Amino acid sequence: MIKAKVRLYEIETGKPIIIMNSADMKELGIHLSDRVTLSTNGNKAAAIVDATTGVVKEGEVGVFQDLRQSLGVKEGEKIDIKAAGRPVSIDYIKKKLKGEELHGHQIRSIIQDIVDNNLSDIELAAFVSSAFINGYTMDETVALTNAMVESGQQIDFGDNVVDKHCIGGVAGNRTTMIVTPIIAAAGLTIPKTSSRAITSPAGTADTMEVLCPVEINITQLKEIVKKVGGCIIWGGSVNLAPADDKIIRIEYPLSLDPEGQVLASVMAKKKSVGSDYVVIDIPVGVGAKIEDMTEAQALAGKFIELGRRLNIKVEAIITDGSAPVGNGIGPALEARDVLEVLDGRGPIDLVSKSLDMAGVLLELAGKSRKGEGRALAESILSSGKAKRKMMEIIEAQGGNPNITAADIKVGDKTHDILASTKGRIKSIDNKRIAKVARTAGAPKDQAAGVYLHAGVGDTVDTGQKLFTIYAVNESKLTEAAQLAEQIQPVSIGGAILKKLN
Amino acid sequence: MIKAKVRLYEIETGKPIIIMNSADMKELGIHLSDRVTLSTNGNKAAAIVDATTGVVKEGEVGVFQDLRQSLGVKEGEKIDIKAAGRPVSIDYIKKKLKGEELHGHQIRSIIQDIVDNNLSDIELAAFVSSAFINGYTMDETVALTNAMVESGQQIDFGDNVVDKHCIGGVAGNRTTMIVTPIIAAAGLTIPKTSSRAITSPAGTADTMEVLCPVEINITQLKEIVKKVGGCIIWGGSVNLAPADDKIIRIEYPLSLDPEGQVLASVMAKKKSVGSDYVVIDIPVGVGAKIEDMTEAQALAGKFIELGRRLNIKVEAIITDGSAPVGNGIGPALEARDVLEVLDGRGPIDLVSKSLDMAGVLLELAGKSRKGEGRALAESILSSGKAKRKMMEIIEAQGGNPNITAADIKVGDKTHDILASTKGRIKSIDNKRIAKVARTAGAPKDQAAGVYLHAGVGDTVDTGQKLFTIYAVNESKLTEAAQLAEQIQPVSIGGAILKKLN
Repeated sequence: MIKAKVRLYEIETGKPIIIMNSADMKELGIHLSDRVTLSTNGNKAAAIVDATTGVVKEGEVGVFQDLRQSLGVKEGEKIDIKAAGRPVSIDYIKKKLKGEELHGHQIRSIIQDIVDNNLSDIELAAFVSSAFINGYTMDETVALTNAMVESGQQIDFGDNVVDKHCIGGVAGNRTTMIVTPIIAAAGLTIPKTSSRAITSPAGTADTMEVLCPVEINITQLKEIVKKVGGCIIWGGSVNLAPADDKIIRIEYPLSLDPEGQVLASVMAKKKSVGSDYVVIDIPVGVGAKIEDMTEAQALAGKFIELGRRLNIKVEAIITDGSAPVGNGIGPALEARDVLEVLDGRGPIDLVSKSLDMAGVLLELAGKSRKGEGRALAESILSSGKAKRKMMEIIEAQGGNPNITAADIKVGDKTHDILASTKGRIKSIDNKRIAKVARTAGAPKDQAAGVYLHAGVGDTVDTGQKLFTIYAVNESKLTEAAQLAEQIQPVSIGGAILKKLN
Repeated sequence: MIKAKVRLYEIETGKPIIIMNSADMKELGIHLSDRVTLSTNGNKAAAIVDATTGVVKEGEVGVFQDLRQSLGVKEGEKIDIKAAGRPVSIDYIKKKLKGEELHGHQIRSIIQDIVDNNLSDIELAAFVSSAFINGYTMDETVALTNAMVESGQQIDFGDNVVDKHCIGGVAGNRTTMIVTPIIAAAGLTIPKTSSRAITSPAGTADTMEVLCPVEINITQLKEIVKKVGGCIIWGGSVNLAPADDKIIRIEYPLSLDPEGQVLASVMAKKKSVGSDYVVIDIPVGVGAKIEDMTEAQALAGKFIELGRRLNIKVEAIITDGSAPVGNGIGPALEARDVLEVLDGRGPIDLVSKSLDMAGVLLELAGKSRKGEGRALAESILSSGKAKRKMMEIIEAQGGNPNITAADIKVGDKTHDILASTKGRIKSIDNKRIAKVARTAGAPKDQAAGVYLHAGVGDTVDTGQKLFTIYAVNESKLTEAAQLAEQIQPVSIGGAILKKLN
């Protein structure tokens, strides 16, 4: 054990790391990445030695904000540092690296250490890599899901809780904001948590935020759902399955997405809010996340099996993911589409997909007989009940319940992209159109994005508007317009479906 | 692009990381772990966004010492931040994760980015994990070795350069310090770089440091070897195969040691100094790093094959690794053993192993006929030539060439561990005896450690001294003595070779 003087650094790292001098490390017989126990004033904390430096002198220890708080130390205070053993979960990560199957308690131990911030980025990356290479058995996936649920907040909303999830990758596609009010209006409970955009021009949470606050804590969430039967909030503001966010941070740089991890991630969030019925939307098509139907079917089968093991009834639907759904792309433009749909107008593809999904959920939850779910969903939408329910949700979350599509401000700087030839629209590339919308400023500029005037299969004349770019500042508009001319997100005519290179 | 005001943090991270505010990240459309390009005053640097925090405000960027130097920025200065693409080597890491074989240029690209600090811990850990799980082909291992060599300093010492390497795990075992002067005295060139202890009570570099400085830069290294034909320096002070140290840092927390990585790591350092002949010592036995003879033979075969591909003649010897070699354990006690051996006395097992190894090298390099190498080594040792050469090396490295075994100060606090029963010594556990020596203060306290009075096979009486613990302070002595009584590193009698639990 050594005593060292604290040097505080005003940085939040989200990691239990400290900085030591190499002479002190030699004294303790430890090495970079080794663990120590810090103690002072009766407080104890585990930490990992992340850096050794001449700036922190012998007899000093560099402490960041995270540990400063848990230890309650001040600059210059002396604390005790002792070499500590490694958490046992590291042995389980090693076991997974060796290709062996993990027991439930071993997975729980890893997940608990992830939630408690006991593992370094190196250890976490080894865990995610081993899962990517060696895969998970269904038993492991079930254990992983349950461990993620148990590590976070759980809410009991009683019976008839339904939910939906989309694998993503399709621009527009704001079905959640139409399905949720239909389902809630039918008397079912739908506590929907959604994500913000990372690489897309808008996540559902970003779009909903145009209409009302989405950063809702767990107490407010309970009240809102109890009162109006549903909500659409940002998942990051409630503490459901917190291990998941930490794992996703590690998966991101290498875009690793071990299938078992994706399954567990989605289903843990559903299980945490006590979902009984869940529909999973798997868009398939050229340019979507999943391009192959066989792969989509296999994934669907695993969602259903995992649901069975968790006592959740899952129905998976495979949808056309080859082109955007809806006309607007970007938070405000998408929100305007949604309000128009709820008013009985709006893009027909968005209406149709939303009614299909709502119908599946209504049948799954026993609200209608087989084959009659879509008709029930349509009647709830056309009667205005869904619209009224959406306004209740918006009000409950703290927004204006009288908002209309016309109230939504879209960017005042616009640029039209015109058809350069006459013909039929062959394809609209999800990734390219998303890139144009992002370049225009979405999602940070809520009012920025793209509005599609024509869809796949439509015939256009030379010079006819294909889409309009919206922005709130000229330079982003110019940049987006140049990008659009260069990458041509909308293709007219031709017989080639895909070019390989 | 955004402009942000620099906030400097006095921390060396060894990583190209910066801290941003989440609003600025949203503006740039980037995410944690994404890359940016920083530019100011005509300087440019790549960086990874590692943390987002409220402490760094919107419009500010947290910069650590490493980047501060490459950018030449001051506190409060404005710099430009632009989102940047990922290095292509990340695609190759992903390829390896998928189980595909990498081409030579792809491995070179990964190694170059490792040396340039372009990869995050997460990306490096994924690389190491994929190598551990998927293994390397011999082609990949050759490419990896060459890439590591090319990424660092290379030295040409002409012909007849020989080297040795031990896989490690055996306490004492200071053969390098006896083999090196024998080989150099025979007229061969042996530019030996050694490591410091991480988990052991002494590395060769720590032991040599008792006699002279070992932190020698590359210019000095060249001069010393040119002058006296050999050296024994700390590898960390010269820039040979720098990628290796960075990879080892990642392997350490999970004790991952992908075989191909070990092979490349050892051989890259030999190739960097232009070795023509190398002997690899693979100790095998209960408690050693490798416990199984078949495994040892397979590893030996791979070293020989890799050597052939690199144009280095390799001979691998499999040695008894079940017990310590020599009597002293700890820097000073081991250095004393070495000087005694060079004086024609010293522990017989250390003498014998050193002569065997030197003999193999002399034959390999053509200095003696087959079967006559050991006799030549013995004559060089007994004639005093090896001793004189060692003193030349010590002097060239800046030490006292008149040092004797009696000059070496060992700890003045001692405690004897006695035999509790009469019988034959059955085993001395490498890991346990190392732990006692470390607890006594080694390697940080050079004079601390353990001295073995009897070896495996010796018969002892009840109350006879088994070993003495040396320390420089009472409390460490007491702690080491208590540990020794508890874990009993020396076993007497009994027929059980190993207990499994």
